[in-house]
Amino acid sequence: MGKIRKILVANRGEIAVRVMRTCKELGIATVAVYSEADRSAPHVRMADQAFLVGPPPSRESYLVQERILEVARQSGADAIHPGYGFLSENASFVRACEKAGITFIGPPASAMDAMGEKTRARQNMIKAGVPVVPGSTEPFASHEEARAYAEKIGFPIMLKAAGGGGGKGMRRVERLEEFDSAWRGAKSEALNAFGNDAVYIEKYLEKPHHVEIQVFADTHGTTLHLNERECSAQRRHQKVVEETPSPILSPELRAKMGEVAVQAARAVNYVGAGTVEFLVDVHRNFYFLEMNTRLQVEHPVTEWVTGLDLVAWQIKVAEGGKLPLTQAPAPNGHSIEVRVYAEDPARNFMPSPGRITTLRVPGGPSLRDDSGVFPGYTVPNFYDPMISKLSVWAPTRREAIERAKRALDEYVVKGITTNVRYLHAILSHEEFVGGDYDTSFLPREHTALVGGAEDPQLTEAALLASVVYAYQRDQKRTRNMPQTSSGETGISSWRRALRRGR
Amino acid sequence: MGKIRKILVANRGEIAVRVMRTCKELGIATVAVYSEADRSAPHVRMADQAFLVGPPPSRESYLVQERILEVARQSGADAIHPGYGFLSENASFVRACEKAGITFIGPPASAMDAMGEKTRARQNMIKAGVPVVPGSTEPFASHEEARAYAEKIGFPIMLKAAGGGGGKGMRRVERLEEFDSAWRGAKSEALNAFGNDAVYIEKYLEKPHHVEIQVFADTHGTTLHLNERECSAQRRHQKVVEETPSPILSPELRAKMGEVAVQAARAVNYVGAGTVEFLVDVHRNFYFLEMNTRLQVEHPVTEWVTGLDLVAWQIKVAEGGKLPLTQAPAPNGHSIEVRVYAEDPARNFMPSPGRITTLRVPGGPSLRDDSGVFPGYTVPNFYDPMISKLSVWAPTRREAIERAKRALDEYVVKGITTNVRYLHAILSHEEFVGGDYDTSFLPREHTALVGGAEDPQLTEAALLASVVYAYQRDQKRTRNMPQTSSGETGISSWRRALRRGR
Repeated sequence: MGKIRKILVANRGEIAVRVMRTCKELGIATVAVYSEADRSAPHVRMADQAFLVGPPPSRESYLVQERILEVARQSGADAIHPGYGFLSENASFVRACEKAGITFIGPPASAMDAMGEKTRARQNMIKAGVPVVPGSTEPFASHEEARAYAEKIGFPIMLKAAGGGGGKGMRRVERLEEFDSAWRGAKSEALNAFGNDAVYIEKYLEKPHHVEIQVFADTHGTTLHLNERECSAQRRHQKVVEETPSPILSPELRAKMGEVAVQAARAVNYVGAGTVEFLVDVHRNFYFLEMNTRLQVEHPVTEWVTGLDLVAWQIKVAEGGKLPLTQAPAPNGHSIEVRVYAEDPARNFMPSPGRITTLRVPGGPSLRDDSGVFPGYTVPNFYDPMISKLSVWAPTRREAIERAKRALDEYVVKGITTNVRYLHAILSHEEFVGGDYDTSFLPREHTALVGGAEDPQLTEAALLASVVYAYQRDQKRTRNMPQTSSGETGISSWRRALRRGR
Repeated sequence: MGKIRKILVANRGEIAVRVMRTCKELGIATVAVYSEADRSAPHVRMADQAFLVGPPPSRESYLVQERILEVARQSGADAIHPGYGFLSENASFVRACEKAGITFIGPPASAMDAMGEKTRARQNMIKAGVPVVPGSTEPFASHEEARAYAEKIGFPIMLKAAGGGGGKGMRRVERLEEFDSAWRGAKSEALNAFGNDAVYIEKYLEKPHHVEIQVFADTHGTTLHLNERECSAQRRHQKVVEETPSPILSPELRAKMGEVAVQAARAVNYVGAGTVEFLVDVHRNFYFLEMNTRLQVEHPVTEWVTGLDLVAWQIKVAEGGKLPLTQAPAPNGHSIEVRVYAEDPARNFMPSPGRITTLRVPGGPSLRDDSGVFPGYTVPNFYDPMISKLSVWAPTRREAIERAKRALDEYVVKGITTNVRYLHAILSHEEFVGGDYDTSFLPREHTALVGGAEDPQLTEAALLASVVYAYQRDQKRTRNMPQTSSGETGISSWRRALRRGR
């Protein structure tokens, strides 16, 4: 350990750009790796050096450990930042970095081992006195044994992959008759996603909130938390909107959950940035769900309310430095993040890769755009279709919601379909505005929310027709027509038609 | 007074967009006015309604009071926000609004009268016990009388227009021999700019700092300040870079200057947002310079460190509401703003209007872009060529400088020439980094700073040649060439050449 001078960012898209921004501000040189599909990607343009590591898909390029390490050696990088996803939670890669004498910017392999395999994590947490969702802690010897266990704790239950998170290998099972096919489905999906078909069983909590605590630890004995993020706005276990503070947490509950998260991190000798995810039930009991041993997608909301740069903290810790705080700062104001995807909410969220012909990113007060695209960029179809994370800050939650909606109104993306209107509909929904939305919110309100999203019938031609119609109707007031006595252009209605289709 | 439902924004460019953003967040409808040169301007696109008010230049459109008021009536706007410049400091317009029953979002005409004419403002401040720069307080009866006064207080002196600010009608006079021609020049410029040729004389302070205090007052007796902005990085009396806190202010001096600024505002029964500008000399004595009775261009840095929305405050005060604070909040962290201009620093800052073919705005943590342009937009040649205000926040000044430089590095504007490299050179200059830079900094270091700016000789052809040369030199490492054994693309040097020309 010691001063880091050059960092290889073993990732792509917005998170690679995000990490490099902090590197630039710290005067640290950056090395990008990229696949053949990412030759013109923003992270390649931003880096001081860039190396091709192979063709898509990721297992041929971004996931090839030897190739990444070879680039690190060739470029003289003294550290690797893994971002999220890809190699970020791969303990064998951490060990390979160590062997190669390259600093891995993340927790030690032992902490990943302790938290990575979900059933082992549950055992470790039970041992550490951290409350967990009632469920199995040992692998099941057989299908029959699993089914018997499920019957014992009572339906509904959740099946979860032991090997990893992110919604893969996850199934909710309502009744015994559904168990067999769900069990087989979960195991096969888990095997595909993590190379490990182990699946465990948890009691299904009704209408739980997903609330997670950001933790941080240095190598000098300080482990602290940086408050929570409310991530209950999920679709198929994928977060869509995140915010902090959580509207359902009292200061006492925040303090208690923070304390337990720190306890969880200490139990596995954690170092660096991590997130302890909890489910909170209707009685405000909370249960350990899993720990993500890396930087989280939604870290910007924490940065907004704490004023900290979490990537800078990660680098500092990796250099062997001391954290500048020893306890959680009081959250300042409110922050909301929405994930902008190249996908079509009206067509079952089908990814919509392609060329971005027009891109206008919102601006103005207390708004942050973490983007992995630019005008003219072609979103490849090999990777997660998230194109940007838009986050806002305001003194209060109500103002933050209005600011986020205003920002989404300004967002113009043409050439591909996005979920911008869907996000707007979420922020406008009374359940979201009320603050007490749980993980059932998005699926339950799907029709109402997608109704407010882009109309799939509104093809380019139909859009043009609707705009022309509205234009003609308003022609006397339109600014492109000869000026009337009033001079008003009253473009609202045809522009509204235009906006519907953007 | 009462709840405002629709606001006419009597301005253009970034400030019109800025005001409308807050209106949208507050659920207030917006009305734009535009000149024939601004048909496709962003503020027109953003507004709910837009009205053509005449051809350029501004005196035929944005400055035609009757036309603006007519639009307000026709659109049913109950208030007018003037932005800065144009009609924002015109007391007769304020009276006309009052007569028309339309709320003017700004101070009362009486406060403008008291501060607008600079010699009267000086008299008022002397009466209120506010320190002013030694100089004349009465109009001069003759050229000879003025010259005699200048000789009496001693050279160097400053000549300043009584009718308005912004550097117009302003002259520094080093010695008696220069007085006559400077006097005539200042008077003629003042007449052109303000329709008033009155010019007054001030003692010229050596190497002063320009430090201003943001003040705010409601109609319920609260007058407070929101700390200072350091604006000494000026070129021809135009601010280029602004920051807060000022690196030269001690907490005691901040408190003292804040108190005096509040005293100045109270003395003229001020209401709304205003800025009291001071000069601070080498001994840290401070002198009232002038008061700007409107929102300031550089207000975002204050918003960053206070977390407040000053436009929302303006609207609240105009509605007759109470300010939510009664004393200055402690500044949180540090903020820097740079003004991005369509101008060529290497050619005497000649404006560079034209079509923006490519625009990539920086993103990421704690960065704000207040822009009046978009990709494909043609910057008209009738108005101030500022295209964007880029502001950043960070916990410390050092980090804020690095963040601002990183942001400028990300800025890509093609099709027009900008001062982006010049701004980067300012932020990198040791005098700026040191923090004790005064108003002589930019003119004195002009050559060093412009040397770091874009090279005027670097035409498109020359740029291409230099890029190709660097490309060939680096070819073995370039990503567009057949991959070498290492696969490195080492694009740094040709890209560096490319960047020089962007």
